[in-house]
Amino acid sequence: MSLPAEFHDIAKRVNNWGRWGADDEIGTLNLITDEVVRAAARTVRTGRRVPLALPLKQDGVQTGMIPGRVNPLHSMVQINQELFGPGTVATSDDAVTMGLQAGTHWDALTHVSHSGKIYNGRPADTVTAHTRAAFSGIDKARHVVSRGVLLDVARARGVERLTGDPAVTPEDLSAAEELAGVTVGPGDIVLVRTGQVQVYLGGDRHGYGHPSPGLSIRTPEWFHARDVAAVANDTLTFEIFPPEIENLWLPVHALDLVEMGMLQGQNWNLEELSTACAQEGRYAFLLSAMPEPFVGGTGTPVAPVAIL
Amino acid sequence: MSLPAEFHDIAKRVNNWGRWGADDEIGTLNLITDEVVRAAARTVRTGRRVPLALPLKQDGVQTGMIPGRVNPLHSMVQINQELFGPGTVATSDDAVTMGLQAGTHWDALTHVSHSGKIYNGRPADTVTAHTRAAFSGIDKARHVVSRGVLLDVARARGVERLTGDPAVTPEDLSAAEELAGVTVGPGDIVLVRTGQVQVYLGGDRHGYGHPSPGLSIRTPEWFHARDVAAVANDTLTFEIFPPEIENLWLPVHALDLVEMGMLQGQNWNLEELSTACAQEGRYAFLLSAMPEPFVGGTGTPVAPVAIL
Amino acid sequence: MSLPAEFHDIAKRVNNWGRWGADDEIGTLNLITDEVVRAAARTVRTGRRVPLALPLKQDGVQTGMIPGRVNPLHSMVQINQELFGPGTVATSDDAVTMGLQAGTHWDALTHVSHSGKIYNGRPADTVTAHTRAAFSGIDKARHVVSRGVLLDVARARGVERLTGDPAVTPEDLSAAEELAGVTVGPGDIVLVRTGQVQVYLGGDRHGYGHPSPGLSIRTPEWFHARDVAAVANDTLTFEIFPPEIENLWLPVHALDLVEMGMLQGQNWNLEELSTACAQEGRYAFLLSAMPEPFVGGTGTPVAPVAIL
Amino acid sequence: MSLPAEFHDIAKRVNNWGRWGADDEIGTLNLITDEVVRAAARTVRTGRRVPLALPLKQDGVQTGMIPGRVNPLHSMVQINQELFGPGTVATSDDAVTMGLQAGTHWDALTHVSHSGKIYNGRPADTVTAHTRAAFSGIDKARHVVSRGVLLDVARARGVERLTGDPAVTPEDLSAAEELAGVTVGPGDIVLVRTGQVQVYLGGDRHGYGHPSPGLSIRTPEWFHARDVAAVANDTLTFEIFPPEIENLWLPVHALDLVEMGMLQGQNWNLEELSTACAQEGRYAFLLSAMPEPFVGGTGTPVAPVAIL
Repeated sequence: MSLPAEFHDIAKRVNNWGRWGADDEIGTLNLITDEVVRAAARTVRTGRRVPLALPLKQDGVQTGMIPGRVNPLHSMVQINQELFGPGTVATSDDAVTMGLQAGTHWDALTHVSHSGKIYNGRPADTVTAHTRAAFSGIDKARHVVSRGVLLDVARARGVERLTGDPAVTPEDLSAAEELAGVTVGPGDIVLVRTGQVQVYLGGDRHGYGHPSPGLSIRTPEWFHARDVAAVANDTLTFEIFPPEIENLWLPVHALDLVEMGMLQGQNWNLEELSTACAQEGRYAFLLSAMPEPFVGGTGTPVAPVAIL
Repeated sequence: MSLPAEFHDIAKRVNNWGRWGADDEIGTLNLITDEVVRAAARTVRTGRRVPLALPLKQDGVQTGMIPGRVNPLHSMVQINQELFGPGTVATSDDAVTMGLQAGTHWDALTHVSHSGKIYNGRPADTVTAHTRAAFSGIDKARHVVSRGVLLDVARARGVERLTGDPAVTPEDLSAAEELAGVTVGPGDIVLVRTGQVQVYLGGDRHGYGHPSPGLSIRTPEWFHARDVAAVANDTLTFEIFPPEIENLWLPVHALDLVEMGMLQGQNWNLEELSTACAQEGRYAFLLSAMPEPFVGGTGTPVAPVAIL
Repeated sequence: MSLPAEFHDIAKRVNNWGRWGADDEIGTLNLITDEVVRAAARTVRTGRRVPLALPLKQDGVQTGMIPGRVNPLHSMVQINQELFGPGTVATSDDAVTMGLQAGTHWDALTHVSHSGKIYNGRPADTVTAHTRAAFSGIDKARHVVSRGVLLDVARARGVERLTGDPAVTPEDLSAAEELAGVTVGPGDIVLVRTGQVQVYLGGDRHGYGHPSPGLSIRTPEWFHARDVAAVANDTLTFEIFPPEIENLWLPVHALDLVEMGMLQGQNWNLEELSTACAQEGRYAFLLSAMPEPFVGGTGTPVAPVAIL
Repeated sequence: MSLPAEFHDIAKRVNNWGRWGADDEIGTLNLITDEVVRAAARTVRTGRRVPLALPLKQDGVQTGMIPGRVNPLHSMVQINQELFGPGTVATSDDAVTMGLQAGTHWDALTHVSHSGKIYNGRPADTVTAHTRAAFSGIDKARHVVSRGVLLDVARARGVERLTGDPAVTPEDLSAAEELAGVTVGPGDIVLVRTGQVQVYLGGDRHGYGHPSPGLSIRTPEWFHARDVAAVANDTLTFEIFPPEIENLWLPVHALDLVEMGMLQGQNWNLEELSTACAQEGRYAFLLSAMPEPFVGGTGTPVAPVAIL
């Protein structure tokens, strides 16, 4: 089995290999210039901060469906321990084991490969157990701060969350852009809200992941045309699950990460942000979403914040 | 053994218990108002972003000196795995085990206790293996964005890094404040640079932690007087190690975290920031330093960024 | 709420505190003398070895019902890595994170406490995050080899597995003893088969744990009367779940571990052993079931083997 | 660089590929027949049990020299937690993260490869992050019980531990065999004592691993000639470190594991056993050394016991 012609056609149109040089490891993050950030800072009006990460805990969004991607196991190695003798100041220390893609996270560009290649045409086998991602590891993505734009697709469709047609299409994105009253442009980080995370927040962990709305295979071209720097949404798998085209698994991952070199984020909680943007009547803000710098990581937990 | 009178005298002067109500769990983070953040955003001039986290890797800053606080063990659970059949898009997934206080981190207010109490007078035994920190866990600190101010003590003293007198005193802080040309005020997050992290960056992992300069027991009053929201520095233990006063271990932790309810950060890499601030001739900026929301965490890795 | 009088009555009758001295940390393992082991070795006739551990893997017997007790996450840190240069011998290395009680395991005597006490009357608070179990940790149980006796309760009842009456009673044990044709005596390790592990082996992970047959609160006296050294069975919770007496949770744990100081094992796969014993017409054998010596562990994975 | 002719010559002489069929995954463990075990059981005379595992703890034998092979991090997820309400029976649960080869362990046959092959000529790339070892994983080694023979090389040389000539040669093995008064034969598990573990037990963790005595490249032929089932010793790296032949790293691993298909064990504490064997004047015993059945594991912790 190989990837269908339809995939390769889109791939050709959105491909960014070589665009920032043969040595580039960060792809569309190159589009976030100081000027973009400067302008983003000027969008701050009220100073309201909206955190976008889900709590990290044992009963997180993972259910075992994705092999090896475990929810955080958080345990104690010291509890009020008077390490220096009775009556001294006591310390508590904790440890965690978790999948780097288990909660609210960024995928590194190396999170997927196809046809033996990762972003910028490098061989996929540069990811090893020893080095992890030798190129385009998440530690290379060191400056993820930009203008954020919420494309509230659920609100634009007038629903609580997408339940009917699961595909977020380019038309959906344009409708949400119009609702937002902004023009998505170079260096923006786009947050696409489907409302799906409500299913998890409502206690249905299995229903959250499957079936799920998500970004259509037609959306990468929309992002590419606007030179977006990164995209995140409020679902487990980012794209439609089960997939939009039978037996074509993770095509959007392959287009965004491998072909475009564009960071993707998943399991972002956009509910409070949706309310805040609607209240304030504006959908652009300063977004800080710095990856934890795991050397060679193919993903990372992230604690993003929108500053309105 | 109990804590000396000197400690208790200072404790009384900086104590914030009840100041934000008996139910408060976040202490001085209350001082970061929307207005403070709004003003902080206005400090952004160039859009330059300076990341402040050390890379997360097996040979991180921990050496085994602190029991159970392990460097990240980063391992692979999938490498270019064609989960959906040969020729399909392949995925790589990784996992990590690490101490929450192992790298660049925030201490939660519950990281230490003394005399059986944590911040706001709650019993220390509300931290358990089952609940972790039931109160003042790091997940409660959800909005850590404010004005950051670099107090570059090493530069103010005219040295590469503090090697002679290891105590960062209130006088040092005031001298650095004068160098910075700003007045530290309510809601600020103060970053204190000693230059000590150069020892780690230079390859001497053991020398980094011990002996180490750090904040004197006299500094909490300085921070309290200015109503600072949080303080971080570029050392392993935050305060002087071995301790300033014989057999008085971690007094600054106890004053900052327990008495004041003020977040502390450690192992922050302030070298690039020092250069940037000196180049631009300004030491105040927008700082985003969002905790990963580990439920009940007594600490968290953080990937802070200064936006100049 | 406190434990009922019925519990305390039995506790009094089976209590072994002080029996092997105030300093003792291993309880009924003291009953395994060299002579017992010598006799056990003489039971070996065919040399057939039957392993009793379930495979350790991500989809093990844990389902999230027991907080923090996670199935093994097994990941790679090296895969055929030519650490010493191209063409050299290559190595593969792996790591695991798991609950010590997650799979086929022994409970240490410290796995439970009641009324503030652990075995031998020591304070329960000698278990801390720093020391783990300072007394009666699993590392103290260093010589777990003895005569094993299979009490095949399912076979004695003439059923595949216990589905009707979930309580394994003293009468069940005596009937199985009669079937076995042996007299259970001092130092024996008794393996009680209910057949419940078939549910897990058949693919129903949730059904395995709940509802489950198990050992009745009346069985500790049976074991005590015979001076058994340890008991293991083929269920998740050892005792009946939901509990035999409403709101009385884990009474058998408390009687076996705290009062008697007798090791308990769970999730042992006794299916192949049942077949082997029936084929050979004998139910006594040499059993080796050495704990992994986690210092201060309150449990441990174990890979037991019956040598027939 | 490729492996030298000397290596390939020996490899040819000890190679067991195909000997137990093309599908075989356990190599020389096939030599442990029921008859061998039956005879082994008859060696038990006193019933004395000698455990051979080092304690599992944070300050174990690993020092960071071997990338990713971490000492056990043992932490608590419950401490005397009254999960079912106040006054009920309380439970303590713990978790561990560790390298499978970190302490006293068996290497699986897949722990090393050379020239792209693992045991029985299978491709090395059958070890993946997803499946781990698809063939010859440690879970396939299900019956590791046999006659154990201690070859006490240190005692035969008349030294506390090998410090002069670090190479354990075939002549050393024969001298120790003569001291033992036994003839090593088919299916035996041989324990080779150098005394090196004394260095670790004496508190010198770095000195234990390097420099270290170990088995010479000439020993695999000795084991092959006698059809030994498995070999373990009391060193970190099994073979001489730094290596016997310059730039020839891990040749004994490659010969034992890949060519012969013979399990290797490391970090076994043979000190108490040495004393016991000398006291009793016999060096053969029943040995139980069951692997923990990690599915696809390339190694496993083991808690071996010699039964004398």
